Amino acid sequence: MKQEIDALMHQQHADALWISGAALHNPAMVYFTGGIHVTQADLFYRPRQEPVLFCGPMERDEAAKTGFRLRSYADFDYYAYLKQAQGDVLKAQGLRYQQMLEDIGLTQGKVVLYGVREFGPFYALLSELQRLLPNLHFYGDVNDAILLEARATKDEEELEHIRQMGRLTTRVVANTQDFLSGHTVRNETLIKSDGSPLTIGDVKSRINLWLAEYGAENPEDTIFAIGRDAGVPHSSGTPSDPIKLGQTIVYDIFPCEKGGGYFYDFTRTWCLGYAPDEVQQMYAQVLEIYNTVAAELSLDINPNTLQLRTCELFEAKGHETVRKNPRVTQGYVHSLGHGVGLDVHEKPWFGQADDPRNNLRPGSVFTLEPGLYYPEKGYGIRLEDTYYVSQAGKFAKFVDYPMDLVIPMPAK
Amino acid sequence: MKQEIDALMHQQHADALWISGAALHNPAMVYFTGGIHVTQADLFYRPRQEPVLFCGPMERDEAAKTGFRLRSYADFDYYAYLKQAQGDVLKAQGLRYQQMLEDIGLTQGKVVLYGVREFGPFYALLSELQRLLPNLHFYGDVNDAILLEARATKDEEELEHIRQMGRLTTRVVANTQDFLSGHTVRNETLIKSDGSPLTIGDVKSRINLWLAEYGAENPEDTIFAIGRDAGVPHSSGTPSDPIKLGQTIVYDIFPCEKGGGYFYDFTRTWCLGYAPDEVQQMYAQVLEIYNTVAAELSLDINPNTLQLRTCELFEAKGHETVRKNPRVTQGYVHSLGHGVGLDVHEKPWFGQADDPRNNLRPGSVFTLEPGLYYPEKGYGIRLEDTYYVSQAGKFAKFVDYPMDLVIPMPAK
Repeated sequence: MKQEIDALMHQQHADALWISGAALHNPAMVYFTGGIHVTQADLFYRPRQEPVLFCGPMERDEAAKTGFRLRSYADFDYYAYLKQAQGDVLKAQGLRYQQMLEDIGLTQGKVVLYGVREFGPFYALLSELQRLLPNLHFYGDVNDAILLEARATKDEEELEHIRQMGRLTTRVVANTQDFLSGHTVRNETLIKSDGSPLTIGDVKSRINLWLAEYGAENPEDTIFAIGRDAGVPHSSGTPSDPIKLGQTIVYDIFPCEKGGGYFYDFTRTWCLGYAPDEVQQMYAQVLEIYNTVAAELSLDINPNTLQLRTCELFEAKGHETVRKNPRVTQGYVHSLGHGVGLDVHEKPWFGQADDPRNNLRPGSVFTLEPGLYYPEKGYGIRLEDTYYVSQAGKFAKFVDYPMDLVIPMPAK
Repeated sequence: MKQEIDALMHQQHADALWISGAALHNPAMVYFTGGIHVTQADLFYRPRQEPVLFCGPMERDEAAKTGFRLRSYADFDYYAYLKQAQGDVLKAQGLRYQQMLEDIGLTQGKVVLYGVREFGPFYALLSELQRLLPNLHFYGDVNDAILLEARATKDEEELEHIRQMGRLTTRVVANTQDFLSGHTVRNETLIKSDGSPLTIGDVKSRINLWLAEYGAENPEDTIFAIGRDAGVPHSSGTPSDPIKLGQTIVYDIFPCEKGGGYFYDFTRTWCLGYAPDEVQQMYAQVLEIYNTVAAELSLDINPNTLQLRTCELFEAKGHETVRKNPRVTQGYVHSLGHGVGLDVHEKPWFGQADDPRNNLRPGSVFTLEPGLYYPEKGYGIRLEDTYYVSQAGKFAKFVDYPMDLVIPMPAK
């Protein structure tokens, strides 16, 4: 949680955090600023000091919403530095940032870098700055030890953001189910009112509309994949594919708040009308293993233990798993879950058995998503909900949604 | 254009381009891959060699759409490297990428970095790699000399993408105009059917819905700002503000293709019902200057000449401008325009008088957007269209849209 940042910085001997980039769709920036509309900013955070936010003069009103100490890029005239640097762009940028950092008294110590941005020119700028301010040392948080560690547990306000996204997400899923089952069927294919087949692309358009209507967005798209595509976990689906009865549809939806806020992550697998015997059988296995693992959730467990347990359960039923072969493409081929927050994938990580900082604890938010994939047989199955651990240490899903495989298609 | 990349690399003595990050909302990656759904990839481009694309094994089907040579991260087992590095995450990542680069024969020369991503850990990785592969040298394209220069001129296919976005954008603007003028007015305020005032937030929700319906998104939001907010160029508008008659509304909309493709950028300024005399007068000035500058567009002109010309025209009418004072907040306070493409702001730049690579030429796509801002007087005005230069050297807007200030509110 946010109040841990200073202690985590102290542990890592970090003197400052430098968060750069846009204020939207930039998790580290949103974590501090709460989602203002600033196209480019540099935020400097130091313990026991007011954060300093640099932005363009035209965005001062938006930036003021943070309550941070504001500085304008316009106070550091780029063209003057360019003249001083005799037209050398990199040198000019270096001189400009040197002056900015000197102005706020940040010229030495360990600075940890955060932010999503075009990194080529920024990499060059950092190298140049390193030359100009040799007592300043730049680091990446490769061990997820400061901001990502703070973000790994959510406070009540953050949980509420995610809960709202869960409600919104399942509302979209329910709309999708109603939309599908409202269609006419001809030759095992769902048919639109104009007589043409309903396609994956049609369904995705509807999903996007509902998300927009409810005030969310899906920057990383939505997986709505049928048949063989459903058997490839990250295939997002082929827009021209018709929606047919009796084929597995993997519907994995992971929208975020408009502007790049908190995510929700949710998957159901459906067969319209009926499901083939083998799919029914495999679905029952996935559901059974989902329920087994969900019942074994406990405080302070390392999620990798749950992943290994899931592999064991799938192997006992005769499937290949990633535990035995990391490159496997048939069977249980991925991780059981991941943390969810301002990134759709964040801490706790499920692959770090030795790192107790990933252990589930109050404030943890994570997915459980076991699945089975047989692309050559034309099907895939995945079930996923987002869970949290309450302050009292209880595990719960944010929202419930039915686990039915078969979506009945009413006769017309 | 794309076919210039090899020559531009040669000019810059670049041996390889390394494009990293997601395939969506990552302009450099979209430029090469065309918008596949891959959450994390590394693309290596070298002249006269097939590009190599690294991605996760679950995303192989999406990645295959590029036709590039595919490599899987799973072939380089992270946990084996972690063991080798005795648990040091950064060393493990360094060893892994060292092996990946050695595998594709990229161990020396100048590598130019591109891509939008969380840069802290990547900065650390590059520093580590630099140690492991001392003959490899990483650069940022700080002079916009390779990819950004290639992207500065668009081929016919790209122009068509932008034209489609222009049609879509003006369709949303027309919907917005109809939506506003369809409202009842009470006490100078637009009223919803439930009797409450129509707000900026209500209008923005509609805009988002139309964008989703037509298959676009606005990752950087939309400016729909009224009154004083309209006088602050980058204020995006206050959601709770009611929509009132006689106040300037700056409507600046800059959506992109779903997933982060080509942008369009467009602004109109409206007064509902009527406009105060001063606003009418100032609007006429902005429109006149817009038309003057648009008529002076010519091949091989540096856009900075147009910016200075615009300042001159505004100054002649008694306004302050950025030419005289870069920190000005009243009068003409920003640049006349910018290039548009896979970024909403890209080359040609309007502030680089000395760099002929910004000169307007066949394939250039850019905005013209003069404006006047008087926040303390409660108004702002901006007019903007996106232009292109045809292969034959002709200048044209992509789409037309009326330039009326006053939107009549029919009596009810």
